[in-house]
Amino acid sequence: MSEPGAAGPSPAAIQVSRIMRPDDANIAGNVHGGTILKMIEEAGAIISTRHCNSQAGEPCVAALARVERTDFLSPMCIGEVANVSAEITYTSRHSVEVQVNVMSENILTGAKKVTNKATLWYVPLSLKNVNKVLEVPPIQYARKEQEDEGKKRYEEQKLDRLETKQRNGDVILPVINPDRQTKEPHTVGYSQSSLIHLVGPSDCTLLGFVHGGVTMKLMDEVAGIVAARHCKTNIVTASVDAINFHEKIKKGCVITVSGRMTFTSNKSMEIEVFVDADPFVDEPRERYRAVSAFFTYVSLSKEGKPLPVPQLLTETEDEKRRFEEGKGRYLQTKAKRQAQMQQAAQQ
Amino acid sequence: MSEPGAAGPSPAAIQVSRIMRPDDANIAGNVHGGTILKMIEEAGAIISTRHCNSQAGEPCVAALARVERTDFLSPMCIGEVANVSAEITYTSRHSVEVQVNVMSENILTGAKKVTNKATLWYVPLSLKNVNKVLEVPPIQYARKEQEDEGKKRYEEQKLDRLETKQRNGDVILPVINPDRQTKEPHTVGYSQSSLIHLVGPSDCTLLGFVHGGVTMKLMDEVAGIVAARHCKTNIVTASVDAINFHEKIKKGCVITVSGRMTFTSNKSMEIEVFVDADPFVDEPRERYRAVSAFFTYVSLSKEGKPLPVPQLLTETEDEKRRFEEGKGRYLQTKAKRQAQMQQAAQQ
Amino acid sequence: MSEPGAAGPSPAAIQVSRIMRPDDANIAGNVHGGTILKMIEEAGAIISTRHCNSQAGEPCVAALARVERTDFLSPMCIGEVANVSAEITYTSRHSVEVQVNVMSENILTGAKKVTNKATLWYVPLSLKNVNKVLEVPPIQYARKEQEDEGKKRYEEQKLDRLETKQRNGDVILPVINPDRQTKEPHTVGYSQSSLIHLVGPSDCTLLGFVHGGVTMKLMDEVAGIVAARHCKTNIVTASVDAINFHEKIKKGCVITVSGRMTFTSNKSMEIEVFVDADPFVDEPRERYRAVSAFFTYVSLSKEGKPLPVPQLLTETEDEKRRFEEGKGRYLQTKAKRQAQMQQAAQQ
Repeated sequence: MSEPGAAGPSPAAIQVSRIMRPDDANIAGNVHGGTILKMIEEAGAIISTRHCNSQAGEPCVAALARVERTDFLSPMCIGEVANVSAEITYTSRHSVEVQVNVMSENILTGAKKVTNKATLWYVPLSLKNVNKVLEVPPIQYARKEQEDEGKKRYEEQKLDRLETKQRNGDVILPVINPDRQTKEPHTVGYSQSSLIHLVGPSDCTLLGFVHGGVTMKLMDEVAGIVAARHCKTNIVTASVDAINFHEKIKKGCVITVSGRMTFTSNKSMEIEVFVDADPFVDEPRERYRAVSAFFTYVSLSKEGKPLPVPQLLTETEDEKRRFEEGKGRYLQTKAKRQAQMQQAAQQ
Repeated sequence: MSEPGAAGPSPAAIQVSRIMRPDDANIAGNVHGGTILKMIEEAGAIISTRHCNSQAGEPCVAALARVERTDFLSPMCIGEVANVSAEITYTSRHSVEVQVNVMSENILTGAKKVTNKATLWYVPLSLKNVNKVLEVPPIQYARKEQEDEGKKRYEEQKLDRLETKQRNGDVILPVINPDRQTKEPHTVGYSQSSLIHLVGPSDCTLLGFVHGGVTMKLMDEVAGIVAARHCKTNIVTASVDAINFHEKIKKGCVITVSGRMTFTSNKSMEIEVFVDADPFVDEPRERYRAVSAFFTYVSLSKEGKPLPVPQLLTETEDEKRRFEEGKGRYLQTKAKRQAQMQQAAQQ
Repeated sequence: MSEPGAAGPSPAAIQVSRIMRPDDANIAGNVHGGTILKMIEEAGAIISTRHCNSQAGEPCVAALARVERTDFLSPMCIGEVANVSAEITYTSRHSVEVQVNVMSENILTGAKKVTNKATLWYVPLSLKNVNKVLEVPPIQYARKEQEDEGKKRYEEQKLDRLETKQRNGDVILPVINPDRQTKEPHTVGYSQSSLIHLVGPSDCTLLGFVHGGVTMKLMDEVAGIVAARHCKTNIVTASVDAINFHEKIKKGCVITVSGRMTFTSNKSMEIEVFVDADPFVDEPRERYRAVSAFFTYVSLSKEGKPLPVPQLLTETEDEKRRFEEGKGRYLQTKAKRQAQMQQAAQQ
């Protein structure tokens, strides 16, 4: 956009802006977290694909490998403009780290708020051979520390990706859609939900695989239904845990997105979401788990204040175990946030 | 979905849930019948394509051949969750019967209502040769009667499909878009409407043919505009007669969807809708009639109560004849419904 | 984006980027002109609404009043990124001029091409009273000449708007949908087409009126079908004449968009498009003409070379007259372009 040497965004930065429409939001007028996640991923896909093709060589498409945990810091509303800006902050040999910031702008009052900060990792796949990972052109760092910090983030996420991959390798336990009529309110079975989606051409990249952002939007949709069924109020996405995209999903697949509540605190709900792909035509392959993630929701009053959440009733041993694991994640996040706030206060 | 006493949904049953958005509905907040028809068909297409590919053999895509008459039993609103569940209830050598149930769920109050029950017939077409109909793997029936009843339904619909095919073979009678300004209100010409649509990639299956559900959504859109032009109030789809899909429509075609009112009772309007396909690029073929069907609408007050409908003014001999035919269908349906209610009362 | 010599994009400039999807394009992979027009208008609406609310005062929404003639300089394809940048170049007391540039970027090769330059005029309407036009905060000009040139452009378009308004005031001449089967190919009646569209919430601004970009997209859709029906090849939008938006279209209206071919040169087709609004629910008002415009299309071979266009066969006196008028516009544009090229060659 601006000339080299300009003090503004680096040459690689891009900005995407769009007016939020009624279909982007729930009935209370709050924009779905999934809409924002999809815009974030589109900006990331553009900037990383552009960068990976910036040197002569095999043409490639950057595929989303991982999204770091992201918090939804303030709600966005219909009629506001979502300003999504992305820039590349680190490159390893085979991956690109993109930092995306989202601001909501009320163009009537001029008020702007940061709604999200997200970090995404992309991997360049050859346009000719989708299984071939290409090399990433290195970026220039203004300071040596930037490179070192980037490398540290890279190593950390690599480790985490490896762990989830092993965990995901387990047998797929499908989320059975129970006969909800016979279930007690506030049990896991009562709010459990799923949807199926036939992957169409506009869901896909040039390589014919589903955009990570499309998958995240569907995941948020299911998680939102689970949360609303549980607490029967207006709910909004509060955060999404790190998501790893181990397996690509091809055009023509049917994907099943299922969600079940795992944990409730006083004012939040954690929902685990699974994406299973069914390459049911043209492919000998069995149904497989493509992605899974934890979404956290809060319940809001008409004035936008957080409401207490009914406690999740766990029935089976598995449900009780997952509740405890969810509690662990909740306490860990809480402790981390308090540490950050103390650190910030001391500075 | 599953029968009482059954161990749970059969492995093949699927469930789709989606929150109804503002764009799915009219300004009064009632979800368009076409939105629901499209969801029903998507669920049907997924379950039948999955089933037809469940045995080793040539890969195929299930194409919609017919939808049985369906009634819209209660309105669905923005913010509600549409729960669409589909299961296979009969298979003949070359076709699959899918039973789809739709429930609206108000996730705030927990209230649920059955909005539709629909029966769809699909035929598996080879992915390599779209003109080749493949064999359908047989399903297991819990009881012998289920198979017998399914066979009876199969024979009945086969006969009806044959009849419409012959009727459709006639010369295409175009619906002329009249100079509405010069027409009297409540005449056939006054409310007559049509639209054109360029078939895009997302409208199509893997075989490159329009999804039956996309066609039905467009048909409902035109029929709804005809109904609204006639009575100038909030209108909703009350029922759709059986629709046969004799001719496929290819990607890149332009389709013309036209509707004209054929009959009014005190509280309902019947609209005949035609879909003509124009394979105008790259194809020597002439425009052809792809589908036609009758939609019934009712007019609702702001409180959701049915309103009286202005009587249709017929002018030409053809219009008078079609009015009488519509009256015949109306009386037949009414008699059938009364018989069902008496039967139900006696049980 | 910014003028040579400028320090960089002005603080008010915005940039919108999006990957072009299959649904944005025709089967040959060329992005529809309407998709680009819609993106242009969205960028214009954001920047002008933002500017008009930048000073304390009544909140307002900028409504599109006019789009100057725009040429589609080079095609855009699926998978490319559309980069749309907008900045405010002139303000009068009650209107804002926005200059929008569109570049296509192939993120695999890095190749960039200017695809459009467009000028749009917006008028701020009060959020509380849609019929009240508010005052526009003045912008700062880097040089006095910029203001003078802007004022000249303002006066010119004002004159043209007035003229079209008077012309549009005539009786509405509906485009009759003919019985195409009985029409000879290449006549006006043969390719004439129209569609109806129910205005939904996502089509509208905060004021509940249709976005100008939504209207232009529908107009391009109809014009494209007329052009394709005439020459039965792959067609692309070459230019759009100035469009004036005299009348607002409200949510819940049915709009009828009709197109008829008016003129053909050796390698181009001119199509006149009308948008009529029918406020049929809850409104006493009659159907009215909201917008009309001329679109020019060219026919492309599989290699993307312009093809000769079959000559339009005119039958009635009106058709002959409109053909001559179209020829006039064609020759005028051609002369203007040649003058510009000579001027550019001399510089």
